[in-house]
Amino acid sequence: MNLGMIAYILSWVTCFSGLFLLPPVVTGLIYHEREGLIYLAVAAVYIAVGLLLTRRRPKRNRFGAQDGFVTVALTWMLISLLGAVPFTLTGDIPFYVDAVFETVSGFTTTGSTILTDIEALSHCSLLWRCFTHWLGGMGILVFIMAILPLSSGRNIHLMRAESTGPSVEKMVPKVRETAALLYKIYVTLTVAELVFLLLGGMSFFEAITAAFATAGTGGFAVLNSSMASYSPYLQYVITIFMLAFGVSFNVYFLIIIRKFKAALCYEEFRWYVIVVACATALVVYDIRSLFPTFEEAFRQGIFQVASVITTTGYVSYDFDQWPTMAKTVLVVLMFIGACAGSTGGGMKISRYLVAWKYLRSELGRIRHPRQVKTLWLNGAKIGDDLLRSVLVYLVAYIAIFLLSIFLIALEGYDLLTNFTAVATTYNNVGPGLNLVGPVCNFSFFSPFSKIVFSFDMLAGRLEVLPLVVMLSAFSERVQMFINKLRAGSK
Amino acid sequence: MNLGMIAYILSWVTCFSGLFLLPPVVTGLIYHEREGLIYLAVAAVYIAVGLLLTRRRPKRNRFGAQDGFVTVALTWMLISLLGAVPFTLTGDIPFYVDAVFETVSGFTTTGSTILTDIEALSHCSLLWRCFTHWLGGMGILVFIMAILPLSSGRNIHLMRAESTGPSVEKMVPKVRETAALLYKIYVTLTVAELVFLLLGGMSFFEAITAAFATAGTGGFAVLNSSMASYSPYLQYVITIFMLAFGVSFNVYFLIIIRKFKAALCYEEFRWYVIVVACATALVVYDIRSLFPTFEEAFRQGIFQVASVITTTGYVSYDFDQWPTMAKTVLVVLMFIGACAGSTGGGMKISRYLVAWKYLRSELGRIRHPRQVKTLWLNGAKIGDDLLRSVLVYLVAYIAIFLLSIFLIALEGYDLLTNFTAVATTYNNVGPGLNLVGPVCNFSFFSPFSKIVFSFDMLAGRLEVLPLVVMLSAFSERVQMFINKLRAGSK
Repeated sequence: MNLGMIAYILSWVTCFSGLFLLPPVVTGLIYHEREGLIYLAVAAVYIAVGLLLTRRRPKRNRFGAQDGFVTVALTWMLISLLGAVPFTLTGDIPFYVDAVFETVSGFTTTGSTILTDIEALSHCSLLWRCFTHWLGGMGILVFIMAILPLSSGRNIHLMRAESTGPSVEKMVPKVRETAALLYKIYVTLTVAELVFLLLGGMSFFEAITAAFATAGTGGFAVLNSSMASYSPYLQYVITIFMLAFGVSFNVYFLIIIRKFKAALCYEEFRWYVIVVACATALVVYDIRSLFPTFEEAFRQGIFQVASVITTTGYVSYDFDQWPTMAKTVLVVLMFIGACAGSTGGGMKISRYLVAWKYLRSELGRIRHPRQVKTLWLNGAKIGDDLLRSVLVYLVAYIAIFLLSIFLIALEGYDLLTNFTAVATTYNNVGPGLNLVGPVCNFSFFSPFSKIVFSFDMLAGRLEVLPLVVMLSAFSERVQMFINKLRAGSK
Repeated sequence: MNLGMIAYILSWVTCFSGLFLLPPVVTGLIYHEREGLIYLAVAAVYIAVGLLLTRRRPKRNRFGAQDGFVTVALTWMLISLLGAVPFTLTGDIPFYVDAVFETVSGFTTTGSTILTDIEALSHCSLLWRCFTHWLGGMGILVFIMAILPLSSGRNIHLMRAESTGPSVEKMVPKVRETAALLYKIYVTLTVAELVFLLLGGMSFFEAITAAFATAGTGGFAVLNSSMASYSPYLQYVITIFMLAFGVSFNVYFLIIIRKFKAALCYEEFRWYVIVVACATALVVYDIRSLFPTFEEAFRQGIFQVASVITTTGYVSYDFDQWPTMAKTVLVVLMFIGACAGSTGGGMKISRYLVAWKYLRSELGRIRHPRQVKTLWLNGAKIGDDLLRSVLVYLVAYIAIFLLSIFLIALEGYDLLTNFTAVATTYNNVGPGLNLVGPVCNFSFFSPFSKIVFSFDMLAGRLEVLPLVVMLSAFSERVQMFINKLRAGSK
């Protein structure tokens, strides 16, 4: 491992953590809140310390896949720990473990909260919560890469480890330019949503926080009622943008370069539309009798479907009260997730496509043993590497999922609460069912469980491997260190 | 496909279905029940029709992997449909769909029941229920193969499709001799259990049915209270034999040929012991305060753990009343299952071992890209074939599981009931939680749901692939037929 290089990148992350705190500072100025000063002080410290540390340049330039995974894992842990500090210092979230849970939930675009009264927070903290969604959605290192000149060999490993989905396609040959392009699309869509929300009569503060949280497919709201009190127009706008941010950004790139047909035929996108349509139909059919008009049933149904499949987690209605079928669909959607290369979480549709194609090809092999077929996804060949990565992801996913269920079961809440709490945090959705239902929150869990959930959220956002690689790399280092000590004492 | 050969084997299956009904006929004679005559009549019809049909010999001898899968799938469906007939004719289970559910539950060694009062059944039917467990446990075609001389090329495909676990190891070079050897071990263990149960003061009828049901890891009992009313000695005997039938029969073969060290070191067996020990410790710790003595808590804990991991499904205590942790452990055990090559169901420990080894090797590859390691399981190399089969199994498993949950959700019962009902039938366990808990049954579901559960039980016992291959082969045939019709009409 190139520890020097990892430390160097983490120094820049510290520095950027400070810069990221400036929007809340501006909010504090506008609303004349003293919390703004605390955000400013913390920002100043992070920037100063970060810049100081970056002066120590790494000696070696070698940077492999393992370094990429470890850097990404440490970056996300570091920025969550740093980002939680102002919550505690301002007194908005007095208990630091709670603040870490909330910050992890923000950066990983989960949207689960430990707050019982969201509206009691200062405007600075409300904006910071939603801004973490926006930063985490596209990726923190992707953001830094878009700005800082790092050598390209290193960048691809970082990008691969931080991006969502089983494979990374560079839109343009250079990683840095791809990162910049991704952020250009991201900003454009966010601004578009902001404009549409303002046109619907939302206040600027509510509109910008909602735009940030939708763009990152996060789900933090500034009102206790989440999205339930907004007008039908605003609910439709948010539904459309939630769905838009769940689409692979490759599709938008294809549109930009005017390959409209290729964009429409993009395989994952088409399946995403099919899944959303089927799920909406099932849910709307199941809940139609609960609402006075079909329009309202349709609006609530598609809002919740969009919210869960894109792993945003906004709530327009307490869906824990819906019939079994609708709830079953929503829980299953948690395990599907959005498209690869979007800001959404979950397992991603492309992983299902790979697995499904693979199953079909194996069935074909049993029936016609001599037939050999090449598998394709989104117009690219599915190689053995991709197949292996999907299997490894699946196994690690199940292992961490089961372990989490066990650890949460120690608290003795009911099975449905435990299962959906782990499912919703691990898949970065937000709300679960029963005790962690749409109108509830995670405040009643013990600090230990909150740490487990925080780990799950990180594991979900980073798609398991970075954390596992980091843990196994460090346990190897510790083992080597112990062996050295033993050899020394002899 | 060699349809002639498939039909020929199915004729023998029909004939054997009749022979299998003779033990209930004997029971009828002993207890002077008129139901015995009905069993005799049905048996005579099956044997006569079966023998008649076997006179038509197949023209071709070619028999591939696809034929093996299709034959196994059709065998199990046929014998379930035939085996259900005497239940309905005797009036013990008047409704035929219920009888099919019960018979499928028997042959697949699930042990879920639609009966509300088991003790009201005739002795013939009680014995038949438990005898189906015994037949299904080791495999119906394996039984026929052990007796009938079929050519060896065909046998390996049948054995592969019917045996449990990701790979089939022939103990001796010839498939037929392996089948005979398996049944010798099976009979010996069953008789041993019978003796131990008789020594504990059980009546002969209760002892033989319990021995049949334990041997097949089934779970049908002859008392409404399942195993709760038996003495501690009997409960311990049953616990030990449940665990024994969950062990891979390869271990017993190694013991027979006096390779004791190899038996002890058999990898899957060691992990099986570790999982049982850990699960028992967790459960006993969680339920210790519910019982007056530690011995009773230990006995109930290990009984339920053994019952669920071996997918037997006997109940010695209403574990739906236990705390969350204990219930979580039991639900997770449902998804683990026993050893490959045992009579138990579920996913099997060896599949987890393959997946886990694979995960570790991939992590190693990320850290040391040039390192290439060979993976081993139970002393044999893990080839690409095995890996692919595990992945395909996993994907098909998840797909069928989710589909079943949806279909069951149509009835509108709660999520926990639906989830554990599908989990317990698919993994061939028996009882679930909530409405399908240990003291409840499946009688309240609609006929449609019962058919879904029956399919799940078959898919679970046959490990998904045979049914999927059969469906896809037949859909291809239908497609060809339609194409021919179209071509003809033009």
